[in-house]
Amino acid sequence: MPTVDDVARVAQVSRQTVSNVLNSPDIVREGTRARVQQAIDDLGYRPHASARRLRTRKSSTIGVRLDPLRDGISGAVLDRFVHKLAEQADARDLRVMIFTADGHDDELAHIRRLRDGSDVDAFVLIGTDHGDSRISWLIDNRVPFVSFGRPWGAEHPNPRHRWIDVDGRSGVRDAVAHLRASGARRIGWIGWPSPSGTGDERRAGWVEACGLDEADRARYSAITEDGVPEGSRCAEGMLALAEPPDAIVCASDSLALGALMAAQAAGRPDLPVVGFDDTPVAAAVGLSSIEQPLDEVVAAALALLFGPHGDDVLPNPDSDEEPTHRLLVPRLVERRSSHLRLGGNPGA
Amino acid sequence: MPTVDDVARVAQVSRQTVSNVLNSPDIVREGTRARVQQAIDDLGYRPHASARRLRTRKSSTIGVRLDPLRDGISGAVLDRFVHKLAEQADARDLRVMIFTADGHDDELAHIRRLRDGSDVDAFVLIGTDHGDSRISWLIDNRVPFVSFGRPWGAEHPNPRHRWIDVDGRSGVRDAVAHLRASGARRIGWIGWPSPSGTGDERRAGWVEACGLDEADRARYSAITEDGVPEGSRCAEGMLALAEPPDAIVCASDSLALGALMAAQAAGRPDLPVVGFDDTPVAAAVGLSSIEQPLDEVVAAALALLFGPHGDDVLPNPDSDEEPTHRLLVPRLVERRSSHLRLGGNPGA
Repeated sequence: MPTVDDVARVAQVSRQTVSNVLNSPDIVREGTRARVQQAIDDLGYRPHASARRLRTRKSSTIGVRLDPLRDGISGAVLDRFVHKLAEQADARDLRVMIFTADGHDDELAHIRRLRDGSDVDAFVLIGTDHGDSRISWLIDNRVPFVSFGRPWGAEHPNPRHRWIDVDGRSGVRDAVAHLRASGARRIGWIGWPSPSGTGDERRAGWVEACGLDEADRARYSAITEDGVPEGSRCAEGMLALAEPPDAIVCASDSLALGALMAAQAAGRPDLPVVGFDDTPVAAAVGLSSIEQPLDEVVAAALALLFGPHGDDVLPNPDSDEEPTHRLLVPRLVERRSSHLRLGGNPGA
Repeated sequence: MPTVDDVARVAQVSRQTVSNVLNSPDIVREGTRARVQQAIDDLGYRPHASARRLRTRKSSTIGVRLDPLRDGISGAVLDRFVHKLAEQADARDLRVMIFTADGHDDELAHIRRLRDGSDVDAFVLIGTDHGDSRISWLIDNRVPFVSFGRPWGAEHPNPRHRWIDVDGRSGVRDAVAHLRASGARRIGWIGWPSPSGTGDERRAGWVEACGLDEADRARYSAITEDGVPEGSRCAEGMLALAEPPDAIVCASDSLALGALMAAQAAGRPDLPVVGFDDTPVAAAVGLSSIEQPLDEVVAAALALLFGPHGDDVLPNPDSDEEPTHRLLVPRLVERRSSHLRLGGNPGA
């Protein structure tokens, strides 16, 4: 069977470059990537698990808990994450088992059962929260896992916690700076209640870039649970100010859609509104949004779980040499929302 | 451990009624359903698989292949299907393994590997097409499965083929009849190329109810691949007719969104447009759409796979006594799209 070294020799690159193409294709130049891919195809190199499975009799299955279904807008990004996880896992001869659970304790009970029955070898946690009780349990019980989400609020994060996340702070900061460069001076923020690791980070990006003093930041920021009607209500309040905002950035596309509808109802159809996650809804209604690089997120998550060469054994939690996390940068997808007029009553 | 009979005794209903509550809750009256659910909760009845798993050493895992990601609009309904499958499977102590594949042959290769390794006991096929090569292979190889999709184009469908589907024809027929009752006389259709089982059925519902003669049906119907720009292009052509349509019904929400944008561009923002699947995008932009009853679809699929009492063994493909399929009825979700104005250029 061909090895990583064979691919490296044929493609005339280093072993590390082959590994990068497999695990972090975004950092490899296009020409090099094409050459390595050609060598992989020509040699019929299968970068992974069949051999390991035969050797260890492990099933090489990844378990992932699905988030509860919500309004179908914000959830779309996680459905896409799971979909891409299945695709990339498949290319590595790994399997993906999905399950649902009511809260962290129930999730851990599921994980324990799946692990004890040798049905699942490693887990992907979607989302982490402050003082997440799952992290220490998984580490203490030596269950291999990676989280799509940082160790929020941990003063001394456990060095064995492998995670991947998207830098929402920089994404929002760049979007706000872009709006300021386009002339906006009073950029509002609609986000989630603290403590929410993800929400607090995104808000911090707004704070950094908005150029408002503390009093104005209090006026032009609103906190709410996620949802379209919630976004509308917050935007209504802001737009009723004597000096209303001239742009609004939101922690999610659901909130942004609500804000956009409120702006239209207030006779401000041209108000720039930016959401987060670049969901199909944002694309459909012409809403600007900050997009998470999910292909890279999934590739990085699998690389952290299964080692940079893919054909390594399951990660050694005691190794200090392997990287334990990666933070990826999102990008603003800008759309002309100025001609948008939405129907219905978001508060209904 | 409590049994179905215990639940029936406590709830003072028949064993069949308990089974209905578990497998076809839609056909049980609300009061009865609540009483049975209370008995299930009080007794701690777990309707399924743990005992079977211990007895048979089977993993009781369902395999399902995810559809490729497309524009994120039409795919949302299948993501919701998989999500609900995971939820309902979990309540029955079943597991769900997801995988991706390039076409039917690759899917069968995956199925064979998963079955041979005893990793998966039964499969759910999402979507079926004309002369689907998977069906006979699965039946001949005695792989338990159910398809979300009918045996399209089969003159003599195999009686061992278990399937569940949604009656798109009646859904479209009802929507068209509703538009006619509201005064529409020239109701157009935008759908997919034939042969597409699902697309042909949906179109047949339009043919039945539109009240147009053959020449008008040719004028007011368009065929295209799925997509927002495709829907726009087809609607543009229809709206340029000397007598343009006064309503348009589409085979998908992607097509309907495109049609709506074309209607706005043509100065017809009030044109009633109806899509299919009631996706989050339809809800977001205020588009009427025909909704598939996914909770019932999933419950029926699991009941067909694992027997009406849930704790039965895997289905016996030679039994002639069990029902082999169910066809469920969708419903129109009506929204006022008249105040909707969408941004962007759908053809871009």
